[in-house]
Amino acid sequence: MPLELSIVFFITELVGTIAFSISGAMLAIQRQLDLFGVVFLGSITAIGGGITRDLLLGQIPPQSFVDYLYPLIAALTAALVFLLVALRQRRNKPLQLINDGILNVFDAAGLGIFSVIGVQSTVQAGFGSNAFFCVFLGMTTGIGGGVLRDVLSHATPAVLRKHIYALASLAGALCYYLLRTRMPTASVLLSVALVVVLRVLASHYRWTLPRISL
Amino acid sequence: MPLELSIVFFITELVGTIAFSISGAMLAIQRQLDLFGVVFLGSITAIGGGITRDLLLGQIPPQSFVDYLYPLIAALTAALVFLLVALRQRRNKPLQLINDGILNVFDAAGLGIFSVIGVQSTVQAGFGSNAFFCVFLGMTTGIGGGVLRDVLSHATPAVLRKHIYALASLAGALCYYLLRTRMPTASVLLSVALVVVLRVLASHYRWTLPRISL
Amino acid sequence: MPLELSIVFFITELVGTIAFSISGAMLAIQRQLDLFGVVFLGSITAIGGGITRDLLLGQIPPQSFVDYLYPLIAALTAALVFLLVALRQRRNKPLQLINDGILNVFDAAGLGIFSVIGVQSTVQAGFGSNAFFCVFLGMTTGIGGGVLRDVLSHATPAVLRKHIYALASLAGALCYYLLRTRMPTASVLLSVALVVVLRVLASHYRWTLPRISL
Repeated sequence: MPLELSIVFFITELVGTIAFSISGAMLAIQRQLDLFGVVFLGSITAIGGGITRDLLLGQIPPQSFVDYLYPLIAALTAALVFLLVALRQRRNKPLQLINDGILNVFDAAGLGIFSVIGVQSTVQAGFGSNAFFCVFLGMTTGIGGGVLRDVLSHATPAVLRKHIYALASLAGALCYYLLRTRMPTASVLLSVALVVVLRVLASHYRWTLPRISL
Repeated sequence: MPLELSIVFFITELVGTIAFSISGAMLAIQRQLDLFGVVFLGSITAIGGGITRDLLLGQIPPQSFVDYLYPLIAALTAALVFLLVALRQRRNKPLQLINDGILNVFDAAGLGIFSVIGVQSTVQAGFGSNAFFCVFLGMTTGIGGGVLRDVLSHATPAVLRKHIYALASLAGALCYYLLRTRMPTASVLLSVALVVVLRVLASHYRWTLPRISL
Repeated sequence: MPLELSIVFFITELVGTIAFSISGAMLAIQRQLDLFGVVFLGSITAIGGGITRDLLLGQIPPQSFVDYLYPLIAALTAALVFLLVALRQRRNKPLQLINDGILNVFDAAGLGIFSVIGVQSTVQAGFGSNAFFCVFLGMTTGIGGGVLRDVLSHATPAVLRKHIYALASLAGALCYYLLRTRMPTASVLLSVALVVVLRVLASHYRWTLPRISL
């Protein structure tokens, strides 16, 4: 992998890890979990998708246990979220650390980044010719952490609740899979942007696919 | 594997895939999920058990990603269910696409078929002498998709709710394991029939194992 | 592994299996599941953590399917719990088979034992130099069965509900990882004792980590 692309992946994965850890930590705080619960749920949200992907790729040990950087950053982020929310609480400020809209954009960025990384890992593991496997594992990496977060915290998975969530992940994964050889670096940014735009527009305009009202 | 047996497995797996996809799609529609949610849940129900089994067998990539036929059929089936239910809704006909009793028989067929296929895959992977592993993975393949469907859609797993569900799967898996060498083709049909009969009778007569009422 | 240590592991795993199976069976009875459900949930609670660990270690088939002893003991224990509770019910005695406090100690013992065994298995699989992976899989083995039990029975996972549950597991796993080479046998007992003491004190004094009340 060329250096430039490595740096792009490094920075985007960092952003994705932080974004997902914040989303897990905020849900844990809403559920009134204690400090450990907040760190636990934040970390699982950030690294759960990658671990699920590595299980399906037969990659032992999963990447997160070879390179501790991301789990560490996820745990620290969640702890920091806890601290900041606690401080605001003392000063009688509203709980909300950051604007819901901003959180949503971060979450969408995480979703896009992990979807792309999932495709990339599957290609690197030698399954590049299997488009279906690549795109599926892209989506798995993108939505897996959130699914674990929701199942563990006993909530209806966002993937089934939110507007165009898994579908946005799928679109990003597919976009990256198709463009990755032609424009290695640009395709990363483009695919992430696609997911972010799709999710933000879908949330804002409450886009929905057809649904049967009973 | 003799040709005749291959055809039996092919047709039964087709029926099982369609049956499980319908059950996932119907639950998704009841939960008012959108079109993507319906296709997602239908597909997971149909291929989730096999993926779980392949993970436990170390089969990478899981069979569903090598041979796309079944995931594709599962997705198409779920989409078709969505379309048909939506059409009925417009004409003010009741939601129910097919009679609950018929759906139950299909679901039981899926359960039986996947239980048998789970045993067969475990034997083919070289663990034929490990009866416990074979029968357990038969049950895992049979009930796994439904467990994933229920966990993801935030419902109490059918495996703990329905009359003699996991037990029927276990009986079918055991039956196939014991008879498979003596009567390769007949044992498939016999084991599936056993599960169907057990489940249908259990549903109809509300058979239950002893239970402690509190 | 020296004989003495093997015996210590054998006995502690036996105790852990029985303790976890009881906790799964009691939850199943409270949920009014039938005999099969009780055996199923008791067994999953006892062997689920180890299976999850083996998946993450790439150990195929998982230990529980190579050596049937523990699944068998788990199933028998759960069946016995069902029988005893049913008998008490008939004589109009309270449901509670054993004192909640005693059950809690047993559960804590199971948690400690499985956390230690998880570390040990990871070391034996050749990942001894990866402290993070060892300790994480220790915690996974410790809490995994309970998480599966709670997710399947549609309850909020104990790991997020109970005082210092996953954290106690983590402490035990870390303690064993650090001491195992210096004092092979004593470190097992010490680490298990640490988890038990932490959990019992935390339950009794309702210790909690900081939490943000909304």
